Amino acid sequence: MTTLQQFIDQSITGAVSEPVKLSEPVPVEQLPTPALIIDLDLFDQNLAKMQHFLNKRNLGLRCHTKMHKCPIIARKQIAAGAIGVCTATVSEAEIMQVNGITNILITSTVVTKEKISRVIRLAARNPMLQMVVDNIEIASRFNEAASDSGIELGVLVDIDPGMGRTGIEAGAPALSLAKHLVGKCQNLRFDGLQMYAGDCMHLEGFENRRKKYTQVMENGAATKRLLEASGIEVQIFSGGGTGTFDIEPGIGLATDLQAGSYVFMDIEYREIGGEGSDRFNTFEPSLFVLVTAISKPQQRLITVDAGFKSFASDKMVPEFRDVEGVIYHWGGDEHGIIQLTNPSREISLGDKLPMLTPHCDPTVNLYDYYYPVRDGKVEELWPIAARGRSQ
Amino acid sequence: MTTLQQFIDQSITGAVSEPVKLSEPVPVEQLPTPALIIDLDLFDQNLAKMQHFLNKRNLGLRCHTKMHKCPIIARKQIAAGAIGVCTATVSEAEIMQVNGITNILITSTVVTKEKISRVIRLAARNPMLQMVVDNIEIASRFNEAASDSGIELGVLVDIDPGMGRTGIEAGAPALSLAKHLVGKCQNLRFDGLQMYAGDCMHLEGFENRRKKYTQVMENGAATKRLLEASGIEVQIFSGGGTGTFDIEPGIGLATDLQAGSYVFMDIEYREIGGEGSDRFNTFEPSLFVLVTAISKPQQRLITVDAGFKSFASDKMVPEFRDVEGVIYHWGGDEHGIIQLTNPSREISLGDKLPMLTPHCDPTVNLYDYYYPVRDGKVEELWPIAARGRSQ
Repeated sequence: MTTLQQFIDQSITGAVSEPVKLSEPVPVEQLPTPALIIDLDLFDQNLAKMQHFLNKRNLGLRCHTKMHKCPIIARKQIAAGAIGVCTATVSEAEIMQVNGITNILITSTVVTKEKISRVIRLAARNPMLQMVVDNIEIASRFNEAASDSGIELGVLVDIDPGMGRTGIEAGAPALSLAKHLVGKCQNLRFDGLQMYAGDCMHLEGFENRRKKYTQVMENGAATKRLLEASGIEVQIFSGGGTGTFDIEPGIGLATDLQAGSYVFMDIEYREIGGEGSDRFNTFEPSLFVLVTAISKPQQRLITVDAGFKSFASDKMVPEFRDVEGVIYHWGGDEHGIIQLTNPSREISLGDKLPMLTPHCDPTVNLYDYYYPVRDGKVEELWPIAARGRSQ
Repeated sequence: MTTLQQFIDQSITGAVSEPVKLSEPVPVEQLPTPALIIDLDLFDQNLAKMQHFLNKRNLGLRCHTKMHKCPIIARKQIAAGAIGVCTATVSEAEIMQVNGITNILITSTVVTKEKISRVIRLAARNPMLQMVVDNIEIASRFNEAASDSGIELGVLVDIDPGMGRTGIEAGAPALSLAKHLVGKCQNLRFDGLQMYAGDCMHLEGFENRRKKYTQVMENGAATKRLLEASGIEVQIFSGGGTGTFDIEPGIGLATDLQAGSYVFMDIEYREIGGEGSDRFNTFEPSLFVLVTAISKPQQRLITVDAGFKSFASDKMVPEFRDVEGVIYHWGGDEHGIIQLTNPSREISLGDKLPMLTPHCDPTVNLYDYYYPVRDGKVEELWPIAARGRSQ
């Protein structure tokens, strides 16, 4: 017998988070599929490349853990130089914090009593925790809860970049909220602004993306000036992601980048194109789902053991890493049907092949652990400790 | 330090599977969202209705656990009269078997050495376990592994209904495989046929569905006759699902129905229509995702905390159970943007509302446990022990 809160707490503290060391390395072709594998060489390369790029431009990296949901990876990013992490949800923040990560920004507001109290409990143990707010009434509720617990909570005002998802309107409404925080919320510390234009991340074509994103962010810059003209200091301006990492420095507004996908990449990002290329290939795909060919019911078709439960299906279909001239068709929850149009290699029953993920975040969220691969072998498993923690 | 196989075994035996009893009931409006809730009254009603329907027609229910992935629910289905369960994957079968369920049919073949040995290990402890095969070479591998372990494994020949996903071609190829099993595979016991026409389940309109499905299954009937004419007894003919539950009896071919979705239902099934109705409402939706309205960045829009990580996105968008005149738009991994076209009720920040799931199976696969609700309260949690077990 347990209370619901105790059960939730135990699921956080009890989540396996450390690497599971194998007593002997396992060749990748012996993994039970579908298996989520990381090419460690490419992963390391992506991690270093982004950090080096941002270091040179004096832009902080507040890497978004909503993508990988893995404290092991978050620690690697921080060790490489990231200033901290973002989480999309309170339970992701709980998992990160219980695993020793302190510089955490929760990028999506919460509004209910029980979620607000969970944020306050985290902040009581971790003065570095920051929250976004986008509403005066909710800000007051946070202030009251912080006051009841005798703590101070750092907050950023979340500005709607115009996509209508979260955030307060730029300009006067954002200023009102900032004034409310500074003037009326003694237990909240106004740290700055967040403006994440998610709908710009995947705009196709570098120049197109640069122009539209720069235009969208003008409202953010104007809001920052408005606050400063009112005597409100804006220490942090957090925003941007993998799709705008090389655009932010030219705008000069953000203090830190909320990038996530750059470590793994996916087909969706590859397709947006990069500077001087129709493919965005600054970062290489390092995440794959290893699948097995399990049936060949008809000529020119072969079925693999990975469908809607192994790949996110919100965007395009998956692709093989090493086979061309074939088309993947969703075959249901557990199957993909491969149309062998003009295959660059034969695929036989039992073959295990890596596939690129269409959209990395919700694909990762389907698995309990990563198999990191180096030289064709797996030596340990990395638990995806925050998988499924959408609360 | 552990071997990979030990780690996998421990994850099966260590999976929390029994109900988690709460020391005090929790009102549904206090659940942390997004939360997967079951309306127990409707759930019980669906369960009884299907069993009653099939009992009257002397058709067995081999309920498919790929949908709910929960031993607690499987036990309830068996207690109500189901003859056993199906699983789509070996690891689902492992979870069911370790939780005391014995009459298990694995409905999708496996082909690799390590997966075959996992099936044989299960069968060594459970003579009721059955496997499908759709290929002569793979059948021989199964036979060898069964022989090495000194056991007999019951198998069904999986017939491709023409959708090209899994299964051997109906007619002569299926007969060859059956003859191979009977004649050459001493450690395999030929139990019958499986033919699951997944692509017929969601055909719109009852009459349209009935006609096409009946036509497709003619190949199955012909194959059965072919085997019997060759002196091969076909004890089992397993197939069909929620979409054809009321069509199977008219065909008279299947000995048991592999239905899963009928306990929960979803928007996809509702839309196919039923006999005499443009909605398939023999079974009522009993599964919902409880979401919270967390932001209102613009007039006529309100954002809820459930996106691609809380709903399967392979089909249509989710819908509110109790609010009309609004449209859900995917807002990314963690958000849904609700367009307030002509809302039948006001939605305020903090409101918690149940939403129907677009496609129940891959939605369930995103959650670790169900919150079963009766009279507005939750008294225990049901772990989704086979969640993520796509291997």
